[in-house]
Amino acid sequence: MLVEFGATKVLCAATVEAGVPRWRKGSGLGWVTGEYAMLPRSTNTRSDRESVRGRIGGRTHEISRLIGRSLRACVDYKALGENSILLDCDVLQADGGTRTAAITGAYVALADAVAWMRKRRMCPGDPLVNSVAAVSVGVIGTEPLLDLCYTEDVKAETDMNVVMTGGGDFVEVQGTAEGTPFDRALLNGLLDLATAGCAELTRLQAETLA
Amino acid sequence: MLVEFGATKVLCAATVEAGVPRWRKGSGLGWVTGEYAMLPRSTNTRSDRESVRGRIGGRTHEISRLIGRSLRACVDYKALGENSILLDCDVLQADGGTRTAAITGAYVALADAVAWMRKRRMCPGDPLVNSVAAVSVGVIGTEPLLDLCYTEDVKAETDMNVVMTGGGDFVEVQGTAEGTPFDRALLNGLLDLATAGCAELTRLQAETLA
Amino acid sequence: MLVEFGATKVLCAATVEAGVPRWRKGSGLGWVTGEYAMLPRSTNTRSDRESVRGRIGGRTHEISRLIGRSLRACVDYKALGENSILLDCDVLQADGGTRTAAITGAYVALADAVAWMRKRRMCPGDPLVNSVAAVSVGVIGTEPLLDLCYTEDVKAETDMNVVMTGGGDFVEVQGTAEGTPFDRALLNGLLDLATAGCAELTRLQAETLA
Amino acid sequence: MLVEFGATKVLCAATVEAGVPRWRKGSGLGWVTGEYAMLPRSTNTRSDRESVRGRIGGRTHEISRLIGRSLRACVDYKALGENSILLDCDVLQADGGTRTAAITGAYVALADAVAWMRKRRMCPGDPLVNSVAAVSVGVIGTEPLLDLCYTEDVKAETDMNVVMTGGGDFVEVQGTAEGTPFDRALLNGLLDLATAGCAELTRLQAETLA
Amino acid sequence: MLVEFGATKVLCAATVEAGVPRWRKGSGLGWVTGEYAMLPRSTNTRSDRESVRGRIGGRTHEISRLIGRSLRACVDYKALGENSILLDCDVLQADGGTRTAAITGAYVALADAVAWMRKRRMCPGDPLVNSVAAVSVGVIGTEPLLDLCYTEDVKAETDMNVVMTGGGDFVEVQGTAEGTPFDRALLNGLLDLATAGCAELTRLQAETLA
Amino acid sequence: MLVEFGATKVLCAATVEAGVPRWRKGSGLGWVTGEYAMLPRSTNTRSDRESVRGRIGGRTHEISRLIGRSLRACVDYKALGENSILLDCDVLQADGGTRTAAITGAYVALADAVAWMRKRRMCPGDPLVNSVAAVSVGVIGTEPLLDLCYTEDVKAETDMNVVMTGGGDFVEVQGTAEGTPFDRALLNGLLDLATAGCAELTRLQAETLA
Repeated sequence: MLVEFGATKVLCAATVEAGVPRWRKGSGLGWVTGEYAMLPRSTNTRSDRESVRGRIGGRTHEISRLIGRSLRACVDYKALGENSILLDCDVLQADGGTRTAAITGAYVALADAVAWMRKRRMCPGDPLVNSVAAVSVGVIGTEPLLDLCYTEDVKAETDMNVVMTGGGDFVEVQGTAEGTPFDRALLNGLLDLATAGCAELTRLQAETLA
Repeated sequence: MLVEFGATKVLCAATVEAGVPRWRKGSGLGWVTGEYAMLPRSTNTRSDRESVRGRIGGRTHEISRLIGRSLRACVDYKALGENSILLDCDVLQADGGTRTAAITGAYVALADAVAWMRKRRMCPGDPLVNSVAAVSVGVIGTEPLLDLCYTEDVKAETDMNVVMTGGGDFVEVQGTAEGTPFDRALLNGLLDLATAGCAELTRLQAETLA
Repeated sequence: MLVEFGATKVLCAATVEAGVPRWRKGSGLGWVTGEYAMLPRSTNTRSDRESVRGRIGGRTHEISRLIGRSLRACVDYKALGENSILLDCDVLQADGGTRTAAITGAYVALADAVAWMRKRRMCPGDPLVNSVAAVSVGVIGTEPLLDLCYTEDVKAETDMNVVMTGGGDFVEVQGTAEGTPFDRALLNGLLDLATAGCAELTRLQAETLA
Repeated sequence: MLVEFGATKVLCAATVEAGVPRWRKGSGLGWVTGEYAMLPRSTNTRSDRESVRGRIGGRTHEISRLIGRSLRACVDYKALGENSILLDCDVLQADGGTRTAAITGAYVALADAVAWMRKRRMCPGDPLVNSVAAVSVGVIGTEPLLDLCYTEDVKAETDMNVVMTGGGDFVEVQGTAEGTPFDRALLNGLLDLATAGCAELTRLQAETLA
Repeated sequence: MLVEFGATKVLCAATVEAGVPRWRKGSGLGWVTGEYAMLPRSTNTRSDRESVRGRIGGRTHEISRLIGRSLRACVDYKALGENSILLDCDVLQADGGTRTAAITGAYVALADAVAWMRKRRMCPGDPLVNSVAAVSVGVIGTEPLLDLCYTEDVKAETDMNVVMTGGGDFVEVQGTAEGTPFDRALLNGLLDLATAGCAELTRLQAETLA
Repeated sequence: MLVEFGATKVLCAATVEAGVPRWRKGSGLGWVTGEYAMLPRSTNTRSDRESVRGRIGGRTHEISRLIGRSLRACVDYKALGENSILLDCDVLQADGGTRTAAITGAYVALADAVAWMRKRRMCPGDPLVNSVAAVSVGVIGTEPLLDLCYTEDVKAETDMNVVMTGGGDFVEVQGTAEGTPFDRALLNGLLDLATAGCAELTRLQAETLA
């Protein structure tokens, strides 16, 4: 499925494979991972292909791990059985917030994949125990803002990614002071904003899946 | 630009860079290269990312080189000046003929890029001296066919990719007997079919650019 | 310098180099980066050397980037001039909290290096505008705890790394629900605990440097 | 065996291994692959070793694949049984036409290896159903020429490699316009020349094997 | 264990693993290997991490192989059974003679590991049939000297590493003329010096293990 | 040039390049390096190409370094000027003693290259101040033997490579006990044998160059 947040476009796809990585074999439990990548022309200035450089950069690794971790929060491994779901998130066009768009879209792809598996009776139970959605929030000057586009992102003093369940609990909170360190009051303001944003995305995910 | 041939979808983008590779510096001549890649879920069964494996496979290399070679046939290096154009061809969905779709689409991206450069007076002359289009033709049983989709491709005895200029000359002819070797008569039949197919694509390219 | 937190031992060293990475040349601004690694026998079960595998793993990349980002919060790039400081953090023995120990120790190495540079008048001003310290906090059962050791870490429902300035502001907040997602009240409890822990470390850093 | 075409010298060797690649196991069918490489001093100006650069270049990959594909046209996989034959083609000295010399020589090495296997009753039937030979043809000015040496090759407007069976059918046709694109008449002239050249090589291969 | 020779500090650790490399499976014999590395700040001028460069340098490879070979001279593979012992030697601080310090310390780690295995009855017999120790000797001007530190090492005309058993036999002799080639008399002088040095280290190893 | 020692065949070639590696620029001194490789079919059982594995093995690195070091003992860097000579040693067929054959042959290639440079007045003086030759000696049972072939090599208790100048001094002595450690008397016997062998090779080198 193609997720669009403003000018950001991310293609999210789920792949189901029977079996799990070696370290998990025989446990009866499933596994979920993510892979994130950007097309070289997704940004304004073309970036080199990681396949051509022969190495995955630190940022790509970090986001792939974040996607996997976030989506695993939705899943009951036992009900999934020894199956793996791999979530590919490929950024076709980037204008800020690609990682949170990827997580939000990957949830829909995951839910689709689980429905497909259940129709084929491929898993022992219902592995989908939660939904997740993610937003980025930031501070421009002194004002907390939701979903910064690229030009805002560059100017932001603080950048925070928040992943929440449909029920309003936190799965991941990652806040970084790019400029001036932030105080507790500002942190609280950002968390309020993120909570409202995730609730709205949860509603849109449910609509898409219905 | 997004090229669609049946269910095959390829995103083609041109990037203009001032300067040329080191071995060409000071020559006053430009350069054109191609990079081809498939998204992991572009095929029916997911393939591993080349960035994750840390190596570009032989097939990817081969097609990237073919794209560069084909597009260079359109270009007067001197009129381009010491500038490089890089053509990215990313396959979003694959159903046969991805390399020929990539070349045909890359020409349109190249023509766009050249127009953009000329508006900015970035090159000394008009570097676009030709157009190119490409088709794949094959033999199913004993019958030559144009533009095989994936299920036909798998069954084909012979697979041939032909790149031609808008004027009807050959830039590249690559024919491979996957099964039974083919005789001269069959080769001639395939070349006739390819010539007609490329002429039709040349017409569509002109329409798109107009 | 060697940092010890319980059984965790991290060797932190700063290297000063004249010059900055290419993308920053001519800006008059300095740069700070981190590199993190674990000796293969620092953990209970030996892990393969990343040099032997030929690739740095995602976790190593992520922590190296975190260390660089955290320490850059201490530094006025302009006062540093076009110099780079590289912070090597090598884990000799690991028992939980290696990344926060690395950041806390790297600050001391950084402050030492800056003092050394100033004595030699290598930088135009005083680049050290802040101190940073870091702690990990977690939830065992439902109770927030400071500085988990490895056996606690494995059982933790939530794991949070917090980097703060000596003045009590946040530089980085990274909280992850390993098990059950956490609610806002629990998040607040963890932040309180982290604030107290970082204040204590700031005091110890000042003592060490004095 | 050592193949010499003018000043071009290629060492071709076949290695027989019981078993086939994983994706082919249990099929009862054999497999044939090629590996091509140039010694660093085989050309006039030394080229870097691919082992030292840590990557196989696109050209090497492409030729290795071509050699495998061409030689597979000789082989009945079922009669070969689940055995693999690997054809190593190492260029000791290069003066144009190394890939076609490699294919022509590899056929002799393959035929030798098959004879060796049959003597030991290692394969269920006679896997050698065809012979293959290859030539390069090109256009200097407007004249089609057989077997260009390096100085001719550099000047050629068009370069074409043709792989044919002993019976005169085509296995592979690869023609590239390096300069001016070529028309159908010129293509026909090149194919005539290649057909005659391959017939002569087929005769020489038979002599060598007798 | 931490070995110190003057200012040189090497951390040596043995890891026991059930099983042997694939090529040795089913033989009933054990195996011993070494891995050597230097921390980036172990030398006066920081060297790049090999994990970051993605390749192990020639010197690292060579020393790792030397350590493995030397320690295997102590071991009866049959008495070890199908177990592997991996000796990690990580240089924390380098001031000449790191490879010989690594071997001498690795022997103590190996003896410890073997004692640990025997207490758990993990090996069929007593695999430790010898001890080994190593020294470096060199020529400054015309005078043979034992255990050069870094500043001497740089000036040495000849550099020789000698590995000997506790019984006074040679396991490895590696002498290199860095400057003027050396004659037989000088070689004999160096070997006398090395023999005395290794005897002293053998005594110290026995003390440490007792 | 092609060196043959019994069934061992090594192709040795020298390449002269103006300029030296970066760390040596501006010193006025030249440099000499070696690169060693084995063709995959040079041994009885085919070994994988290092270019295909994407890594140079430890043994290849070690021998390349030994070749460079040995040949540098012949050269006056100042008389060579800021030029580099690269010695490629490619093993076509291996039957023991490939590294010593490579060194002995590389000297002849080096002497040729130096003569070629001097004719063109490319170097300020005569850089060739020594000749080098190398032999392998070993112990079968208790008897020292010169130039072991592969089947002897496998059985040898001790294996020693000795590189000597034409004047009879030692450049490199590398002795390894593969089985039982060796005593001083045996070491002396091996060194006598090596000295005689190198003297004979020095005579043959002079003949070849005359």
